[in-house]
Amino acid sequence: MLKKLLLFALAGAALFTVGILIGHFGIKKKNSSPLPEWVQEVAQDVDENLIEKFIAQVDNVQIEENLKVLTQVPHMATTAGDEATVEYMLKRWQDRDTGLDAAWREDYRVYLSFPDKDKPNNVTVVRGSDVVSFIREKEKTYSTEHDDSDVVQPYAAYGPAGHAKGKLVYANQGKVSDYEHLNGTLGNLTGTIAIVRYGGAGRADKGINAAPFGVIGVLVYTDPYDINDGKMSDENETYPHSWYLPPSGVERGSYSTSFGDQLTPYLAAKSDTYRIDEKDITGVSPIPIQPIGFEDAQMLICELDGPEAPETWQGSFPCKYNLGGPGFKNTSHFKDCDVQLDIYNKAELKDSANVMGVIWGSVEPDRYVIYGNHRDSWVHGAVDPSSGTAVMLEITRILGQMVKTGTWRPRRTLIFGSWGAEEFGLIGSAEYAEEYISKLSQRTVAYINVDISVFANATLRASASPIAQDVIFTASKQVKIPGSDTVSVYNNWMQHSNRTSPTYGVIPNMGYLTGAGSDYAAFMHYLGISSMDIAYTYDRSKTRARIYPTYHTAYDTFDYVSRFIDPGFTSHQTVARTAGNVLLRLGDSILLPFKCSDYAESLEQYLSVAVENFEAELKTNGISMESLKEAVKSFRTAATSLEQTISSSDVVGNSPLKARRINDQLMLLDRAFLNPLAFPDKYGFRYRM
Amino acid sequence: MLKKLLLFALAGAALFTVGILIGHFGIKKKNSSPLPEWVQEVAQDVDENLIEKFIAQVDNVQIEENLKVLTQVPHMATTAGDEATVEYMLKRWQDRDTGLDAAWREDYRVYLSFPDKDKPNNVTVVRGSDVVSFIREKEKTYSTEHDDSDVVQPYAAYGPAGHAKGKLVYANQGKVSDYEHLNGTLGNLTGTIAIVRYGGAGRADKGINAAPFGVIGVLVYTDPYDINDGKMSDENETYPHSWYLPPSGVERGSYSTSFGDQLTPYLAAKSDTYRIDEKDITGVSPIPIQPIGFEDAQMLICELDGPEAPETWQGSFPCKYNLGGPGFKNTSHFKDCDVQLDIYNKAELKDSANVMGVIWGSVEPDRYVIYGNHRDSWVHGAVDPSSGTAVMLEITRILGQMVKTGTWRPRRTLIFGSWGAEEFGLIGSAEYAEEYISKLSQRTVAYINVDISVFANATLRASASPIAQDVIFTASKQVKIPGSDTVSVYNNWMQHSNRTSPTYGVIPNMGYLTGAGSDYAAFMHYLGISSMDIAYTYDRSKTRARIYPTYHTAYDTFDYVSRFIDPGFTSHQTVARTAGNVLLRLGDSILLPFKCSDYAESLEQYLSVAVENFEAELKTNGISMESLKEAVKSFRTAATSLEQTISSSDVVGNSPLKARRINDQLMLLDRAFLNPLAFPDKYGFRYRM
Repeated sequence: MLKKLLLFALAGAALFTVGILIGHFGIKKKNSSPLPEWVQEVAQDVDENLIEKFIAQVDNVQIEENLKVLTQVPHMATTAGDEATVEYMLKRWQDRDTGLDAAWREDYRVYLSFPDKDKPNNVTVVRGSDVVSFIREKEKTYSTEHDDSDVVQPYAAYGPAGHAKGKLVYANQGKVSDYEHLNGTLGNLTGTIAIVRYGGAGRADKGINAAPFGVIGVLVYTDPYDINDGKMSDENETYPHSWYLPPSGVERGSYSTSFGDQLTPYLAAKSDTYRIDEKDITGVSPIPIQPIGFEDAQMLICELDGPEAPETWQGSFPCKYNLGGPGFKNTSHFKDCDVQLDIYNKAELKDSANVMGVIWGSVEPDRYVIYGNHRDSWVHGAVDPSSGTAVMLEITRILGQMVKTGTWRPRRTLIFGSWGAEEFGLIGSAEYAEEYISKLSQRTVAYINVDISVFANATLRASASPIAQDVIFTASKQVKIPGSDTVSVYNNWMQHSNRTSPTYGVIPNMGYLTGAGSDYAAFMHYLGISSMDIAYTYDRSKTRARIYPTYHTAYDTFDYVSRFIDPGFTSHQTVARTAGNVLLRLGDSILLPFKCSDYAESLEQYLSVAVENFEAELKTNGISMESLKEAVKSFRTAATSLEQTISSSDVVGNSPLKARRINDQLMLLDRAFLNPLAFPDKYGFRYRM
Repeated sequence: MLKKLLLFALAGAALFTVGILIGHFGIKKKNSSPLPEWVQEVAQDVDENLIEKFIAQVDNVQIEENLKVLTQVPHMATTAGDEATVEYMLKRWQDRDTGLDAAWREDYRVYLSFPDKDKPNNVTVVRGSDVVSFIREKEKTYSTEHDDSDVVQPYAAYGPAGHAKGKLVYANQGKVSDYEHLNGTLGNLTGTIAIVRYGGAGRADKGINAAPFGVIGVLVYTDPYDINDGKMSDENETYPHSWYLPPSGVERGSYSTSFGDQLTPYLAAKSDTYRIDEKDITGVSPIPIQPIGFEDAQMLICELDGPEAPETWQGSFPCKYNLGGPGFKNTSHFKDCDVQLDIYNKAELKDSANVMGVIWGSVEPDRYVIYGNHRDSWVHGAVDPSSGTAVMLEITRILGQMVKTGTWRPRRTLIFGSWGAEEFGLIGSAEYAEEYISKLSQRTVAYINVDISVFANATLRASASPIAQDVIFTASKQVKIPGSDTVSVYNNWMQHSNRTSPTYGVIPNMGYLTGAGSDYAAFMHYLGISSMDIAYTYDRSKTRARIYPTYHTAYDTFDYVSRFIDPGFTSHQTVARTAGNVLLRLGDSILLPFKCSDYAESLEQYLSVAVENFEAELKTNGISMESLKEAVKSFRTAATSLEQTISSSDVVGNSPLKARRINDQLMLLDRAFLNPLAFPDKYGFRYRM
């Protein structure tokens, strides 16, 4: 009986167990079907471990290698050297093991301006028809690469072809106020040639400002005071002995005040796009203009007659800068001489390529984080732009590998842009923005620009929409400076440049993206996409150089970077880590790491400056600033309310539409600052934060 | 033993059952946590039963009641009568049992133009300084309400104050070509007064076109040919005997070519908004202009001297229409008489209210479907606009009740707008669009406009963005026409107006929203929001009236509607069912019921007409249409591809972000047709489909 009982008990236990098993696995639970995979996927937030892994993988040696390849030959836009970099970018981004999901080229037919190889521009000092002195046509050679036949002659792109001969005057920086002062002092500038130094006014403006005073030609040079901390001798002071500009170095550049292709404003420059007449182009110098080296500038300026220039107009040459008789001193070997410009620049329609790459987002493929830099340089362009491209390639190598091995895919789509023809006026990025204006406006979360990644190796520098300050701070707190295991990029940055925030106390001083200095312009100022520009830069206590000294010259080479800008490439590495970190956070966070209260603080600070500067005067004219104050106050209220919503929202355990709702508000905040009343000729700058 | 076995078996069965129960309820499944509620919520698609219930609940008697209340007194914008309708809308939308989630008023300070009550406009026939005849100042009274002191005198809003006296000429419809013909025939129009009939040109254009020919004043009337199918006698032919316009009826209206507040273009007209100078207003008549009844017009026109007007200029008066000597016949009692206009219109800044109401969306509260109509009328406005408001109130009553009882909440947010000051130039809706431009552009799925809901009781009429054709068809197939259980609104519509679609064969002919005829203008043409305009309208085989005859007159009353426009209010009911159906589908469908292939078909049809009309001539000028053909082709390819994506997507069993991605593409399609090169003075019409 016991045995029977046991048997029954066992049978009972078995039945009980089978029952449990059937109950558990065999019957579908009401209100409890298995959790769909996507429910977990949409709840995946940014992975801090992954970011740490990314940081660890960023390799300075790889960046150095990238730079070496990118700077083998000069790669001015649309040249053979540029085409070689197109091929290289495609090869890298289409690599089986480290490439992106897809990469392709997109060509635009754009309006570019070049000197004539057969008839080089020349500037001469002449007495009647006798040439007394030649200004250098090309920069001096210190190594074979400076002598490459593809080194473009220094010139002012979009400066008109033409001939001008006249007495020389010195016009400081070529600002309107400079010409006014000069004209006031000398009485009449008609028929003169002005020599001006870089800085203070845009390149084209130096010519545009001059013409109304009767000036018929302009020479532009870089004063050693502004770029070389006064150093002038290539015997021992300038490159190849240091990072300073050699005496014959000449900054090239685009001499146009607009950005984007000049013949197809606000339309993508495709082969069949409507083009305006060349004569309808605005924002370029109406008179011949040519940049020259400071060696030649010294030769001219130190011989000038006339009244002494004001103190602030003086530079580093070992002579008094006079304004010009107009013309040279009677005691000079240039006595009675004119300066003559013979400029043969010519415009051409050329096909310029953007190289585009993409990693598709898993959860929100229709939200884009764009990371870009231009690819074209003036000459070898090791700093500008290849230091940025080398960094971008290192970031995409690591992310590409993670995608190819299936270990990671971003929540949002990451788009990488290697822009063409930036040096001629941000053309590649602007045409891209114009072509895809609707998609980009509707879907882009942020644009990260890393053009020159390392100006110098002292500290991070970032400019951005205020909404992006927080994510840049977060990333820079996580990354250490070169050679330290303890000092964060953030702390180092704060030491170099800081401000006191009413909210946070002392913090690094992040800049705003005001001008059109690089490819963020079309994204920020035309489309209102929250943008940022990230680089390593100078210790301002050590130099007053307005930019790294070989900027846009034949001396901006791999040798220059590896010996003077960033030996060991650890600053490049630091930028890659920081910018890549920002990219990952923007790409992977469930909630966008954007902080609209930082935007409120910026508006409040603008307001307080405006009130300080204008309220009293406006009041005397019966104009009140109360509405403006109210608007800023209500922005703050809205920002606070949104952040309360954010902090009280359980976005992980909720419909992803809840996060999307908040994210769209954050994404579109900058878009709301586009001026709906801007005239089309100001569209390029219709963002009005 | 058997008993024991049975007992054990029973015990076993019990254990087995308990096991199942424990297994099912007691043990948490691995990888199978209970499905969160939101997963089910986001998978909830439009409920066809609910739509049927909605249709069943739409009540013609309620609509009739609504109309009765709305039309008690004249409610011209910003008058006491208007304010009463504001209160009524608020009361209805804030009702505990049938109201919306929230309702509120939003005021704008807008620039309106009125006649002077103390100095009424008058038009006289004069001989020297003797008045020979007066033109009626007010319409004739057939019932006490026509005599209400708040019936505004007929006038041309925004026509300038001023005095003009001159010989009369007849200028047909006041088109440029009309004045050209007249000027060509008479030789000189300087100093004349023109009388023109409504139609063919915009109201303001009749004055704007006249001024360059030297015309100094304009009278506008409605010819019985155009509005009354020739009927003229109030003894037995016109209202109160029929729907036709009595002889003294005058169409009032805004005489401006723009829309939105005229002093604050593209900015919301708040009290502190920057206002342009009155003298900088454009698009209004530069010369005095006044509308009059056809009784008076007949008296003038039939006495005109001069050559006989062309055949197409003739109307229904029992006389030959002559062009004018200028002036009257020698045989007339008006011999040698001038016509004199004394116009005292004056502009004022007034506070005009929109009444807004909302039902918040459950799943996608940040996606808006907007349904609107204006509230202000010229006089009692029973057809225009109260027939639409009565319908809107019936829709919100039913939906509000469903929300208040907890039986339903839409997936997306529904916003209802009762716009102010539409009659003066779509002001309320335009200011709303201007104030919330960013939010509306970013979040609005569609705008449904039902202004005049019933012009006549023959058939549905709908105009819309092509993308909305499908949802309007779907709704109209589901709703039956008044008095029938079998004939659908769709089939009846197709019988009245159809076209042959390459895709579908014969279908109802849906119109496009081209002009600025009602409050859809700011949504469609300024913001590029997919819009639609829905109404019941004429049987064109029975009348050629250009609009319902008492349009903008004192005779557009409740009595008129209930006796002649829609006795029984069943056409109103049909419009409410159809428009409400569209609203529910837009608000509740997981995938927006938008069909981009219908957009492709529209583009293809535009193209084929353009090719037919222009290709040959363009070719002779070396201009190719190939790019345009390519663009249309690639739109078709993209549309096909998106529809394949849609049909192959399991949006119910997937992350709601998948549906959102598709929906955003559909929602923003019309936005992509906003011309980014429009000058600000054309922003109001920058949509260029």
